[in-house]
Amino acid sequence: MNSKKVNDLCVNSLRCLAVDMVEAANSGHPGLPLGAAPMAYLLWDRFLRHNPKNPNWFNRDRFVLSAGHGSALLYALLHVMGYELPLAEIKKFRQWGSRTPGHPEFGVTVGVETTTGPLGQGFTNGVGMAMAERFLADKFNRDDYPIVDHYTYAIVSDGDLMEGVSSEAASLAGTWKLGKIIYLYDDNHITIDGGTHLSFTEDVGKRFEAYGWHVQRIPDGNDLGAIEKAIRIARKQTNKPSLIMVRTHIGFGSPKQDSASAHGEPLGPEAIKKTKKSLGWPLDKDFYIPEEALIRFRQAVDRGAEEEAKWQKLMERYRREHPDLSLKFEKAIKGALPEDWDDNLPVFNLEDGPLATRSASGKVLNVLAEKMDNLVGGSADLAPSNKTMQLGKSLFGIDDTWGPNVHFGVREHAMAAITNGLALHGGIFPYTGTFLVFSDYMRPALRLAAMMQTRSIFIFTHDSICVGEDGPTHQPVEQLMSLRTIPGLTVIRPADANETTEAWRLALTLPGPVALILTRQKLPVIDRERYTIEGGVARGAYLLSESDPTGVDIFLVVTGSEVHLALDAQIELKNIGIKASVVSMPSWELFEKQPEEYKRSILPPDVPKLAIEAGSTLGWYKYVGSSGDVIGIDRFGVSAPGETICEKFGFSVAEVVSRATRLLNK
Amino acid sequence: MNSKKVNDLCVNSLRCLAVDMVEAANSGHPGLPLGAAPMAYLLWDRFLRHNPKNPNWFNRDRFVLSAGHGSALLYALLHVMGYELPLAEIKKFRQWGSRTPGHPEFGVTVGVETTTGPLGQGFTNGVGMAMAERFLADKFNRDDYPIVDHYTYAIVSDGDLMEGVSSEAASLAGTWKLGKIIYLYDDNHITIDGGTHLSFTEDVGKRFEAYGWHVQRIPDGNDLGAIEKAIRIARKQTNKPSLIMVRTHIGFGSPKQDSASAHGEPLGPEAIKKTKKSLGWPLDKDFYIPEEALIRFRQAVDRGAEEEAKWQKLMERYRREHPDLSLKFEKAIKGALPEDWDDNLPVFNLEDGPLATRSASGKVLNVLAEKMDNLVGGSADLAPSNKTMQLGKSLFGIDDTWGPNVHFGVREHAMAAITNGLALHGGIFPYTGTFLVFSDYMRPALRLAAMMQTRSIFIFTHDSICVGEDGPTHQPVEQLMSLRTIPGLTVIRPADANETTEAWRLALTLPGPVALILTRQKLPVIDRERYTIEGGVARGAYLLSESDPTGVDIFLVVTGSEVHLALDAQIELKNIGIKASVVSMPSWELFEKQPEEYKRSILPPDVPKLAIEAGSTLGWYKYVGSSGDVIGIDRFGVSAPGETICEKFGFSVAEVVSRATRLLNK
Repeated sequence: MNSKKVNDLCVNSLRCLAVDMVEAANSGHPGLPLGAAPMAYLLWDRFLRHNPKNPNWFNRDRFVLSAGHGSALLYALLHVMGYELPLAEIKKFRQWGSRTPGHPEFGVTVGVETTTGPLGQGFTNGVGMAMAERFLADKFNRDDYPIVDHYTYAIVSDGDLMEGVSSEAASLAGTWKLGKIIYLYDDNHITIDGGTHLSFTEDVGKRFEAYGWHVQRIPDGNDLGAIEKAIRIARKQTNKPSLIMVRTHIGFGSPKQDSASAHGEPLGPEAIKKTKKSLGWPLDKDFYIPEEALIRFRQAVDRGAEEEAKWQKLMERYRREHPDLSLKFEKAIKGALPEDWDDNLPVFNLEDGPLATRSASGKVLNVLAEKMDNLVGGSADLAPSNKTMQLGKSLFGIDDTWGPNVHFGVREHAMAAITNGLALHGGIFPYTGTFLVFSDYMRPALRLAAMMQTRSIFIFTHDSICVGEDGPTHQPVEQLMSLRTIPGLTVIRPADANETTEAWRLALTLPGPVALILTRQKLPVIDRERYTIEGGVARGAYLLSESDPTGVDIFLVVTGSEVHLALDAQIELKNIGIKASVVSMPSWELFEKQPEEYKRSILPPDVPKLAIEAGSTLGWYKYVGSSGDVIGIDRFGVSAPGETICEKFGFSVAEVVSRATRLLNK
Repeated sequence: MNSKKVNDLCVNSLRCLAVDMVEAANSGHPGLPLGAAPMAYLLWDRFLRHNPKNPNWFNRDRFVLSAGHGSALLYALLHVMGYELPLAEIKKFRQWGSRTPGHPEFGVTVGVETTTGPLGQGFTNGVGMAMAERFLADKFNRDDYPIVDHYTYAIVSDGDLMEGVSSEAASLAGTWKLGKIIYLYDDNHITIDGGTHLSFTEDVGKRFEAYGWHVQRIPDGNDLGAIEKAIRIARKQTNKPSLIMVRTHIGFGSPKQDSASAHGEPLGPEAIKKTKKSLGWPLDKDFYIPEEALIRFRQAVDRGAEEEAKWQKLMERYRREHPDLSLKFEKAIKGALPEDWDDNLPVFNLEDGPLATRSASGKVLNVLAEKMDNLVGGSADLAPSNKTMQLGKSLFGIDDTWGPNVHFGVREHAMAAITNGLALHGGIFPYTGTFLVFSDYMRPALRLAAMMQTRSIFIFTHDSICVGEDGPTHQPVEQLMSLRTIPGLTVIRPADANETTEAWRLALTLPGPVALILTRQKLPVIDRERYTIEGGVARGAYLLSESDPTGVDIFLVVTGSEVHLALDAQIELKNIGIKASVVSMPSWELFEKQPEEYKRSILPPDVPKLAIEAGSTLGWYKYVGSSGDVIGIDRFGVSAPGETICEKFGFSVAEVVSRATRLLNK
């Protein structure tokens, strides 16, 4: 069989598999697979270095389907290439319990590198993956030992390129000269609302050139030769990320070709027949893969095994030549911490304070960085405020250094989505930094971090109205509570420097993402001689200070900067004969994971409770109950010095005493 | 005095006022005012058409300081130009109760057109303002009567241009050919983290040309002649928005010039002396404005009065020539609704159902659009799903029509921030549409809408896991609860088509922004003969169905699509002898505004309560109390048909009955 015929069979196999999947599910997106199958086939067959039998081979090329709605195409590829995704799963597309969900989900399907669907995210994750590759290559590769050496490919759509997050990421990728990024743009001129002339008339290629990308244009998306040539040229661009604009036709071959209705609805039995007919496909077969096509596709299995074997041999030699480095490398790619990573974590004493928790965090980070050289991160242009710099270490991607300090610019959203990519790639412990109020800019990426359970650390400083003069636009109010609503994200708001150390310890060892919520203002260091902290942060909440061994009238349940206020109020309350115990509650999520017995011991149902937190009160009633009260903030802040605001907003000993008294008199 | 000398005095007055403000506050950003004062002075003195004595004159040019951290410059301008902002306020910069907060706040300071500080927002608000101008000009201007005819100017910074939201907005402004946008880019090569070479190396001018903007470059930001010429050229670009890149020096004239430390800290007394010396300013005077400068600045008062008087004369003639149109115009710019606007709002009956609330919303919108031709909005490329199209009406900015239907493309963030600009401009009732899960992309702009109390309607459809096959990336879980944490945003989740009508009625009459939370799936229309709805939505919660006149065992407190489930469960519970009353609670915010007495009558403290809502449970304990329970979702969803998921996640009559029984047996 000649190669043109095999190519056609392969491309049309992918197309028809995808169409049949959508039809069987009666739900999904046939348009993208029909148009983009040729570029996907060509990339996976000719270029993508991957091992279907070991999808986690570390040095594989990464492939991201940023246009996640085209998931059927990705599942078809994984199946035909020999991944552990049998036809039975393909037939259960979008059904309960299947491994072929509506949009690709990391962790659900082998070979899926990241969860995509919300547009712009996959594009940006890919930048993070390429960044990880560059960072690790610089650190571990030695002459003749390119042990980290792979490309990051993606198929991206109009929607991906319209989203602001991809603009942010593209600008950074250009600045960092990430030449191993090769993105194929499925340029089909159609969105859900209609033609791209309705909303997307810009010169995309010129825009990417402005970012410092290498741009190529392919007028016919079915021209495999042109795609192959373009990818070869792109691979030669070592200093520029590549965008290959491939003019395709959504719904190619179907009666709905080039129409918005091809985008997100099943074709229907009649149109499927017409489509298959126009593609020269048998009309009586569903999920059909001709043998010649399958043989061709499955060459990927041997090819992949060979590629990995070659790399394993290289690794063997590398182990001999560079034993220390290779040990470090293998630890890194397993995601393991150095054995003595937390030996020197700082313990803060009374005389170290008062100290902002952001400053304590900066100190902890820098101690960690002495032992860990794969802590990689930075801030969205607030490094001096967020204390995210690793002192004495170099920058990433600037002036030809590839160090761990990253300047993301004022691009919070890309920072978070790139960080997801860094974490997914592996080999790195990534972190970010910005003001808590700007977590709003990052939410879509935070959600995906939580969904994928990537191990990332999101540092948020300036965590309340105590920010002061910058005013309501910079004072978080609802952010803390609304981060707590994200399933799978662990939010920790330490009360002082030592709780901050513990928060970092957890952030590096918990399986999923962690948000650290830190103050701008200085806080006293809580006296560890007097108040136990041991293990308390890990349990989410703990009894910090018992009023009196003989009993308790009221619990003050408090987080972060309000804990020392509660300790002060405790003394005042004692003076007027009220026994108040103080519970420090740095993390709701960790507390929820404790046994019921522990929870009841910390927050006994029958004792009145007053919660104190400089943020939205909305969720607190779960813990204080119907008979409890909350000192919080359910309005926007104001511009004034921080101490004035705190006082005016009721964060004072007098107010705590008054509210506690009122509560007990109810 | 020659004009060069006056110009210098004026520019340096602004510079030194700003520096003195920051110093007095011991907080703020002196760098931008020192660098950008020349362009600001030139724009306000030579071009900006505004009336300091009537800052709300409708046809004024709009000016946005997108780089809101430079607020001292804006306050200085407002003061010297004769706005109602006395020197006493200037001296209280960033203090409690002042009208000169840390970042410009709409509604706090006269002449401030929008709240800025979170970067990229002001840039995008300006696009909305220019869009409003274009829409209203097309609707109301007639030959010889350009009654709506103004520019939208802004000063934007590196940070503004790095943020993705401005990329989205710039692309749309180019597509819509908004020629009356003229943005001055304070191109100072410095960010908080250091030089822009660290994170911002793209070719900004080329990027904006790619969006379809007209771009000019001015090498010396102190060259008033060059700035003046560039603005003149920009005004001639009627089909392209303009970006004028002005090379400035942050902290100009100070010892910190061209350094990051000039950005966000007071200069300190020594550096201020040096700065004033280098600017030829008296060292012994604070807040000093030379008389010659003040005379020049204050020409704005007479000029503004004349400009407005000319326009008022034009309006007088327009009223005579076009009486009907002028009545409409005056109503529109007052933000008033047509008198009979809600006469024909649809009432849905049993036989109209089942009907998704998104479909009901689409019907209501289209009935409203018959009477209101200044309802302007659309969707972020989900118009067919969000039901946001006004049928039979034209598009905005495409093929030279300027109708009310807007295709925002896949740009949720810009959609929201543009909508803030539309609302701030006035004359328009704006709305947006996307899936609820993508509200995450819009959060920074939603927050500002709430802070500014703009009258905007945010339509969010596909409001729960019942979305089904698209899977967890498209299934909102935490969004509903986390929107409720935003102070000042009214969230309404109607239970059926008739509650949807009421929700729209409220959305158009409430003073601030409203989020409408609507289903993808069909819902039964609740029988109005049997169950009262009258006035209930406006009160936030109401007794929809009383179990039994003799008493109640349990309240089912429910929102949106779960209400009909509760009604079904009520019947089952009755069968087993449990008297359950159903409270429909479409809006927490509206409920919170009711008198205590009403609240207690709807949710009596002594009766057990079971809340049911397909979303995060976090805030519900406030209403169900310690003895209550919540059927909700605190994990991500899965991809499968919607009905399967709802059943598996516990949204079934059986589960409600079981949980209610368990609760009563506790």
